Amino acid sequence: MPVAKPLHHLGLAEAARLIASGAITSEALVAAFLARVAEREGQVKAWSFIDPQAALAQARACDATAPKGPLHGVPIAVKDVIDTFDMPTEMGSPIYAGHRPAQDAACVALARMAGAVIMGKTVTCEFAGMAPGATTNPHDPARTPGGSSSGSGAAVADFMTPLAFGTQTGGSVLRPAAFCGVIGYKPTYGTFNRAGLKFAAESIDTIGLIARDVEDMALMSSVLTGAPFTAPAAPQQPLRIGVCQTYLWAKAEPSARIALQRAADAAHDAGADVRAYDMPAHFSTLTETREIFNNVERARSLPFEWMHHRAQISAVLSRSIETGFATSQADYIAAKRFVERCRIEVDAIFEEFDILLTPAANGEAPVGLHYAGDPSFQGLWTLLHTPTIAIPAGKGDSGMPVGVQLIARRYDDSRLLDAAHWLIAHAGVAATMV
Amino acid sequence: MPVAKPLHHLGLAEAARLIASGAITSEALVAAFLARVAEREGQVKAWSFIDPQAALAQARACDATAPKGPLHGVPIAVKDVIDTFDMPTEMGSPIYAGHRPAQDAACVALARMAGAVIMGKTVTCEFAGMAPGATTNPHDPARTPGGSSSGSGAAVADFMTPLAFGTQTGGSVLRPAAFCGVIGYKPTYGTFNRAGLKFAAESIDTIGLIARDVEDMALMSSVLTGAPFTAPAAPQQPLRIGVCQTYLWAKAEPSARIALQRAADAAHDAGADVRAYDMPAHFSTLTETREIFNNVERARSLPFEWMHHRAQISAVLSRSIETGFATSQADYIAAKRFVERCRIEVDAIFEEFDILLTPAANGEAPVGLHYAGDPSFQGLWTLLHTPTIAIPAGKGDSGMPVGVQLIARRYDDSRLLDAAHWLIAHAGVAATMV
Repeated sequence: MPVAKPLHHLGLAEAARLIASGAITSEALVAAFLARVAEREGQVKAWSFIDPQAALAQARACDATAPKGPLHGVPIAVKDVIDTFDMPTEMGSPIYAGHRPAQDAACVALARMAGAVIMGKTVTCEFAGMAPGATTNPHDPARTPGGSSSGSGAAVADFMTPLAFGTQTGGSVLRPAAFCGVIGYKPTYGTFNRAGLKFAAESIDTIGLIARDVEDMALMSSVLTGAPFTAPAAPQQPLRIGVCQTYLWAKAEPSARIALQRAADAAHDAGADVRAYDMPAHFSTLTETREIFNNVERARSLPFEWMHHRAQISAVLSRSIETGFATSQADYIAAKRFVERCRIEVDAIFEEFDILLTPAANGEAPVGLHYAGDPSFQGLWTLLHTPTIAIPAGKGDSGMPVGVQLIARRYDDSRLLDAAHWLIAHAGVAATMV
Repeated sequence: MPVAKPLHHLGLAEAARLIASGAITSEALVAAFLARVAEREGQVKAWSFIDPQAALAQARACDATAPKGPLHGVPIAVKDVIDTFDMPTEMGSPIYAGHRPAQDAACVALARMAGAVIMGKTVTCEFAGMAPGATTNPHDPARTPGGSSSGSGAAVADFMTPLAFGTQTGGSVLRPAAFCGVIGYKPTYGTFNRAGLKFAAESIDTIGLIARDVEDMALMSSVLTGAPFTAPAAPQQPLRIGVCQTYLWAKAEPSARIALQRAADAAHDAGADVRAYDMPAHFSTLTETREIFNNVERARSLPFEWMHHRAQISAVLSRSIETGFATSQADYIAAKRFVERCRIEVDAIFEEFDILLTPAANGEAPVGLHYAGDPSFQGLWTLLHTPTIAIPAGKGDSGMPVGVQLIARRYDDSRLLDAAHWLIAHAGVAATMV
């Protein structure tokens, strides 16, 4: 059976089917991705660790054994704040140079149990925060790939791997996906087990996925949650979509505004019930509230590093930690109570709408590698614990990708993936950049 | 200034004051606790790791330097599912024999930043679950100390240390405290940062404290949250106490029923507004719901151990993992949604009451070391994320300690500690067993 496209253009589910049918071997597939890495890594710098021989050895072991599960022989990449027992986990920090955990994080072990090949570790901003690594945007090496899952976004967009794990505390999965022109999915808070993840702010840290196909999100979700895999399906009834500018609209650049309008129009034309939705006015403090969470919880999760390795902590993270330690517990608790009330109010929004549609980011990826971009448009939903997905929605004036973001009610992840798939497949929203 | 009691009878706050005033040295204090360990550890078996010379070295280092913080020179113990960079962290499992993490857990590092001496690691049930270690109840070596924070409960009750960290996913802090006749405090979910904790069921795992004095809970809470330390104070107005038998009342043995009545009467006599409170009928499924959380999340947090070391996992934990993997994601999500609704309803209960009063456990510690007791009376509140504290409330027919449990609204931890302190100090509830 001939394969209709280059092997390194295959998605996770596609590749798994081809391996299962005997059309391709895991070794050939992994070799194709490694060849792409060899060709492009010098510019993109997506990987903090990759050992081609070890990846090929995993692939050959898969080819030599009966399938272990639905990911048999398919490679994935892992953001370097997630533990791996056979590769370093350096967390984007010199403090952890060469660090080797004793065990895999839960998500990595579940992927391996399903047969996945772990290709390597992808570059993360320092402790999944604001200080970027060396990764460049595959579409323009002068621009940031976004962060903090910088390497995951760039590696997937550059066809170096079909899917990568990321983590999101603000906008660290969706923003790199949007800036690199691929799909970024942050499930409902708590969906993918976090054992073996280095915490940033534990009450909002969420493991997510970056891939080039919504089906791949559904497949990996099935592996990590044990839910039966069902390919994304068209909604039974017209989707009720609320177009939500949010209180951040002034930050939305023309490219983001145009992309949102285009996506809303396309959804309407394809039969969705599309209406404007305005958030409650008091939600406008959620960005500052997320900052309180972020600073306080970072300070409390890094006291060992703060005590023993302070000189190796970046200035931007040091400021966050200092601010966190200086924030009163009363203010933090008030913030937590406020957000819990907002989460309940958000549930009610989804009585009226199936999906909210909003910008994925301010606009195109900014020029420069020192700043991974503004997390506001993504962080709001991270704080609210809702599932959220960014999909490509065309290009901006600089020819860089621009995304839109879909949000569903907490635990309605299947509905979210279905809606994203429908927008791409049936409404023609996505002009995928890759 | 003479010290009025043996040094190893000092609490955390008392000892800190005496060190700060120069009345005692850290070395003398730690040596006194170590002498108690040497005398009693052969029977109690509370410690999975203790190195007397290393503990004394930490104490001498404190004595040689200016105070670093409010715990300067005071020893504490750490449950062995919590990482320490300078001691093994074996988690009650042969899989982790000799395991040494690269860093301290956040709570340990924060305690060290405040000047604490880490005396050693206390015995935990396997991965904070149901398979006990060798620890015995200090009041009767034929009886369980409770679990899974078995060593923490026993070490504090036996005067081997003033305070120990524990963790609670069901009843793992409050039950050993109740069975050993000391105080166990589980704060509101999320209060103490969990970086460096081995997860059991991450959406309910809570780091808690075992000590002999409520003031010590307040002091350690201040260290771990950065809130100003305020000694527990009598309530400004009469406490509104709801006496809550719960749907588990049939499990309450006569000793637990008598203790609850005695505590309620004492509170009433001391001026509290004490009334009966019946939980909503649908709360009666919370015990089974917690089992769903426990099984599903354990299965998802231990895939590495399940894949590589299955033969070293106990039968009871294997059953939990297998049940977890066999539970549908739909059932798990339904359970999560149900509990989130219940948590909101619990907030409303505390419009009417300041505190709920309920049994701490079924009764006295059972005979035998193979079973650490029924977590039902504690686990209900762990699932609901409320802060909860067990205090000693007399003896049962076998002469063993029996406790009562106080519960407050989420984030009302200060009110909870104040109420516990008041019951002990002003209502004469506690006949502390130690």
